[in-house]
Amino acid sequence: MKILDIYNILDEISPFSLQEKWDNSGLLVGNFEDKIKKIYVSIDLDEDFLNEVEENSLIITHHPLIFAPLKKINYDNYCTKLLKILIQKNIALISMHTNIDKTHLNMYVAKDILKLDIIEKEDINDFIIYANVNKDFDEFAKEITSKLGIEFTNVVKCNERVEKVGIVTGAGMSLLSEVKADCFLTGDIKYHDAMDAKSRNISLIDIRHYESEKYFNELLVGVLEKNLKKNELKAIISASKNPFKFCIQGETVE
Amino acid sequence: MKILDIYNILDEISPFSLQEKWDNSGLLVGNFEDKIKKIYVSIDLDEDFLNEVEENSLIITHHPLIFAPLKKINYDNYCTKLLKILIQKNIALISMHTNIDKTHLNMYVAKDILKLDIIEKEDINDFIIYANVNKDFDEFAKEITSKLGIEFTNVVKCNERVEKVGIVTGAGMSLLSEVKADCFLTGDIKYHDAMDAKSRNISLIDIRHYESEKYFNELLVGVLEKNLKKNELKAIISASKNPFKFCIQGETVE
Amino acid sequence: MKILDIYNILDEISPFSLQEKWDNSGLLVGNFEDKIKKIYVSIDLDEDFLNEVEENSLIITHHPLIFAPLKKINYDNYCTKLLKILIQKNIALISMHTNIDKTHLNMYVAKDILKLDIIEKEDINDFIIYANVNKDFDEFAKEITSKLGIEFTNVVKCNERVEKVGIVTGAGMSLLSEVKADCFLTGDIKYHDAMDAKSRNISLIDIRHYESEKYFNELLVGVLEKNLKKNELKAIISASKNPFKFCIQGETVE
Amino acid sequence: MKILDIYNILDEISPFSLQEKWDNSGLLVGNFEDKIKKIYVSIDLDEDFLNEVEENSLIITHHPLIFAPLKKINYDNYCTKLLKILIQKNIALISMHTNIDKTHLNMYVAKDILKLDIIEKEDINDFIIYANVNKDFDEFAKEITSKLGIEFTNVVKCNERVEKVGIVTGAGMSLLSEVKADCFLTGDIKYHDAMDAKSRNISLIDIRHYESEKYFNELLVGVLEKNLKKNELKAIISASKNPFKFCIQGETVE
Amino acid sequence: MKILDIYNILDEISPFSLQEKWDNSGLLVGNFEDKIKKIYVSIDLDEDFLNEVEENSLIITHHPLIFAPLKKINYDNYCTKLLKILIQKNIALISMHTNIDKTHLNMYVAKDILKLDIIEKEDINDFIIYANVNKDFDEFAKEITSKLGIEFTNVVKCNERVEKVGIVTGAGMSLLSEVKADCFLTGDIKYHDAMDAKSRNISLIDIRHYESEKYFNELLVGVLEKNLKKNELKAIISASKNPFKFCIQGETVE
Amino acid sequence: MKILDIYNILDEISPFSLQEKWDNSGLLVGNFEDKIKKIYVSIDLDEDFLNEVEENSLIITHHPLIFAPLKKINYDNYCTKLLKILIQKNIALISMHTNIDKTHLNMYVAKDILKLDIIEKEDINDFIIYANVNKDFDEFAKEITSKLGIEFTNVVKCNERVEKVGIVTGAGMSLLSEVKADCFLTGDIKYHDAMDAKSRNISLIDIRHYESEKYFNELLVGVLEKNLKKNELKAIISASKNPFKFCIQGETVE
Repeated sequence: MKILDIYNILDEISPFSLQEKWDNSGLLVGNFEDKIKKIYVSIDLDEDFLNEVEENSLIITHHPLIFAPLKKINYDNYCTKLLKILIQKNIALISMHTNIDKTHLNMYVAKDILKLDIIEKEDINDFIIYANVNKDFDEFAKEITSKLGIEFTNVVKCNERVEKVGIVTGAGMSLLSEVKADCFLTGDIKYHDAMDAKSRNISLIDIRHYESEKYFNELLVGVLEKNLKKNELKAIISASKNPFKFCIQGETVE
Repeated sequence: MKILDIYNILDEISPFSLQEKWDNSGLLVGNFEDKIKKIYVSIDLDEDFLNEVEENSLIITHHPLIFAPLKKINYDNYCTKLLKILIQKNIALISMHTNIDKTHLNMYVAKDILKLDIIEKEDINDFIIYANVNKDFDEFAKEITSKLGIEFTNVVKCNERVEKVGIVTGAGMSLLSEVKADCFLTGDIKYHDAMDAKSRNISLIDIRHYESEKYFNELLVGVLEKNLKKNELKAIISASKNPFKFCIQGETVE
Repeated sequence: MKILDIYNILDEISPFSLQEKWDNSGLLVGNFEDKIKKIYVSIDLDEDFLNEVEENSLIITHHPLIFAPLKKINYDNYCTKLLKILIQKNIALISMHTNIDKTHLNMYVAKDILKLDIIEKEDINDFIIYANVNKDFDEFAKEITSKLGIEFTNVVKCNERVEKVGIVTGAGMSLLSEVKADCFLTGDIKYHDAMDAKSRNISLIDIRHYESEKYFNELLVGVLEKNLKKNELKAIISASKNPFKFCIQGETVE
Repeated sequence: MKILDIYNILDEISPFSLQEKWDNSGLLVGNFEDKIKKIYVSIDLDEDFLNEVEENSLIITHHPLIFAPLKKINYDNYCTKLLKILIQKNIALISMHTNIDKTHLNMYVAKDILKLDIIEKEDINDFIIYANVNKDFDEFAKEITSKLGIEFTNVVKCNERVEKVGIVTGAGMSLLSEVKADCFLTGDIKYHDAMDAKSRNISLIDIRHYESEKYFNELLVGVLEKNLKKNELKAIISASKNPFKFCIQGETVE
Repeated sequence: MKILDIYNILDEISPFSLQEKWDNSGLLVGNFEDKIKKIYVSIDLDEDFLNEVEENSLIITHHPLIFAPLKKINYDNYCTKLLKILIQKNIALISMHTNIDKTHLNMYVAKDILKLDIIEKEDINDFIIYANVNKDFDEFAKEITSKLGIEFTNVVKCNERVEKVGIVTGAGMSLLSEVKADCFLTGDIKYHDAMDAKSRNISLIDIRHYESEKYFNELLVGVLEKNLKKNELKAIISASKNPFKFCIQGETVE
Repeated sequence: MKILDIYNILDEISPFSLQEKWDNSGLLVGNFEDKIKKIYVSIDLDEDFLNEVEENSLIITHHPLIFAPLKKINYDNYCTKLLKILIQKNIALISMHTNIDKTHLNMYVAKDILKLDIIEKEDINDFIIYANVNKDFDEFAKEITSKLGIEFTNVVKCNERVEKVGIVTGAGMSLLSEVKADCFLTGDIKYHDAMDAKSRNISLIDIRHYESEKYFNELLVGVLEKNLKKNELKAIISASKNPFKFCIQGETVE
């Protein structure tokens, strides 16, 4: 199957033109006319994973490997080290980032994983999914972290109750000023973000970047399955790993 | 004592001209000619803290309250809500951010708190402090987190041993490409930063933003004491709080 | 009454979205949810005026107090000195600048004050109001300055007659190249503007900035009266003063 | 005499490299290798003046004729109308603007015309000349306007006395925030400038743009005389006119 | 006839609003209200040609004389040397560049001169004209150069056959990445362009800038003839010359 | 030998810091710590050449392969097609572009190849080499093209004699306004450049891009030989080809 054909299927599922201006979704490595034998789906790339991928495959990731445009390729950082393996093994790379956040991923996590009482969104370009909650904060935090399998995390608790929640998978704190809810769920929350949220009286539960976006894998394999049926090609999950380990009182816990 | 006099003392201790281009250290609120009765020192501002501060005082913080230039002051976010209290209580605000990072804070934490075997830095404009370690990663992580009183955190472990460490208090991951060590300590580490570090084979221990910078308070009061002695004015620590609570398996722990 | 409610009334009268890109009309100081007891209308702010304004009021001005975005608030210039009083007295500030120029002010002065024979304008975004004149320049100048109560001013006389005039209140000389008339009325005319107009054969009468825009006060109170009727709230004029005195042969005349 | 030779003499008198970044001083029209027969000196250009200038001459003006770079030359504004005459009559144009402001003009007006008690300036790049005054404001205003022959003007009076004055010929209000004096003299003062000065407690006397800079003519002819002596060439004053007439109660006065 | 009238006729033939952003088509020299006696048409200007043009004429060129905006007019380069003659002889200049490329010129050369089998273009804003070829490269190159009267030129031959050709007169290599054909005809092909084309497997025939655009003259005179009929005014071709001579083994050949 | 060691030798020969701002000289592909077995020197890259290069080699080219920073690597243009081969064969790439133009190449061609009577240049940052000529243009053109082996080219002849010549290898027409000579030699001369030169009365001989820069190969191998002697490593010339063929009256000549 030609990469172009798969690209077109993906573009129908989640149009690349919906991506944000600063994003770099699309075919990042590989030629549209090349044929590939196997499709892998992974939230990200890492060396261990790439070493297992077969040559002449296509990988579909959530995060674009190339963000800052490249003037030199010196195999000395995350991007260029992995680029080297991709190109040497003739592996193509398509990334679906903010386009699939908007069309599928945020909704999938909010609805299918967290089973929230969703308020339908008005504009396809909105990132934030809202839901009615009406629970104690502690109970809600327990429920959310348990469903996502997050053992350790940070929270900012501004009120005893949560009435309405907003959710953005990955790292969504730059959207804080738009949040119209009393609680916000997202990952990679930094200290100054927490200070700002507290001041705005918006509670936070850090649902962690990797843990909240890893559902990209099963989600994409699911939608691809329906579209690729007639072809022999199968998309398989063979994902990169979370680089973080957690550390309690100096002891690393898996 | 006039604000200008205190500003000049601070400028001698840590010249404001050393601040980075994007920084906004200096006298953020208040007039140089005004007189103040009391000096408070705090890593940051929050509402509870400001409610306790006396009128006509001066607060010296580490982080600048104003970062994005203001076109509207609507009392609806961290910056403008606190600005309102400052101005209504006639409290002046001086921030010492990247200038004191360079001249004092990073070194103070590395040397006086962590008791590391420091390698002298060459350029006053460098942020990163380096030290020789030569320990097992697990042992080193335990030692560091214990000295900083950090119960829960994230680590990225690339090697069993740590030979040399770099340290930047606060949020220093934008400096990763400059790090010349096999382990890096800083706070607010995001998922993509962790991926990049792993790829560069640099271990990480997240020493957290607030927890690694809170030493600003005792440090500044210490240096001010010597310079303010002859005057009656005293600098007191009365700091803002960490907005984060930690949450293990859904249970919030203080 | 909540500020938001008044803001919405003003926005219906003269949509804030019509403002020019470089403008800063809108709620400059205060929170949309706050309640106010009194509305003042003034072309601008000055200290004497602010000292008389009651606490917890709203002032509606023509000129935005904040133009250059603020990084430091040092109470040492027009903007930050007055900001201090506004915030300390909890006075909110809304500015209606280029939006009301376009929807009301220029037309009001041309038609209701100067009683000119108006040519209807085509585009709501046009600033310049045109009128047919057909008079001697000297006679016309006398008439205009008399109606505006301007005793002393500068003129550039290119022709004996005035056929058609363009008018922009405040400081409109940056629009000279668009003027399609043989005479132009505006304020704050600088020397190089006068040179350019003379070269283009367009006569000028400086109708002065303050003197041509002070009608903002009565105009806005008038339109607000109709919209606020059912509420108890009243808008009162209590305006800032013209900082200029005139000086003839060294003698200052009021 | 070649234009280049005269240019070099002027550059020695007042180096063109001292001009501000936004300025366009230098040889604006004409070729360095051309020979000219006559030199005219004028603060500015206007049509009447150009019609009297002989062909193949050089004019030295204070203000650059070209400011905004030209993409079309349509003879329909000040700049392109006069460019046409210059080029058709083969007249060259050199402008000495911010360079001579810094090296001569501001000092000449302050010292030789206004006979002020000058405080020596420290940096050649400073525009503002300072002087000690110690007089009543009214007396000082009378003296200044009388010496400059200004019959009608605007003033902002903040204090009864003037202790120290700053002066910039032409239009210097953009320098207000740098002024370290209780009174400032400059031309083309706009309404918002006056508001700002009043708030800073700095009195203003508008010494008008043309009236304060017309001394450029005699100043430059004077310094040229010494340098051109050995050559037959003479510089003559034949200046442009002030486009403004003054108008009192509708009556135009010369 | 007024220049404005001719401008309007040209604007109907080929709207100036179609020009590219970086272009400067339009009335570059002269005033819309001036009357002219004679129209000349020429791809470009040069001194010999301008010396023959009558005073008070209008020249219509393909290339804009002014590209880089002018801050100084020193008669020392192509643009300002010729500007001097234009203005001194009171000759007006209109340029029709990328607008006529799009509406007429590229199509005229492809269809009427080269007699290619044109594929109709879809968007008026496209520059490239496509045609079916299906010939040997050598035969095709011979045919093209013979029809354009080009004796010497450069080619890049990637394939023995040409199936489909794209053509842009003048200098069109910046469009290479858009070319959807196996052969591309344009002028001013630089070495790196040739390297890129070879790598993309697109053959090139350099149809030279002047030689491929000189048809502007006959084309424009033709269309003007129909529109100017009722007026006495005639457009005549009196063109600038190609500055290049060709040199074979050191011998210059005309 | 490590790439870093070779890089350091090249940097001593011709410091990379001398490159122009817009240039991208340096290690474009490969890691400084990698070891290489063979060095190739070539003005540029092309597919045929790369297919012959051994794996794990280093190529030193004159032109940087990467100019526009890369956001996608789609193997569909000159840069990314060749990047693929480089990376798959683990070939490193160093480019020495404007730095070696300044330190060696322009001088080498002017002095050692063209045997011109050089005028020593004053500033290491100058690109243009000047020489005294004093010959008939035709004779000079014959001599130059003969020495460079250029059979066919374009010339602009402004004068019968050549007194002084300026020379820049490659494509140097952007420097025309700086040329202080009556004849200029460079490559890739476009039509508008020729018009400008003719107007400035500067004759041109197009010494072609590839033909004037191909001496980079022998030059670099020469200087490397001296520095690499003690090591076994040898630099060999194995260059890319000129993509252009010449075409006379439709016949392609090699």
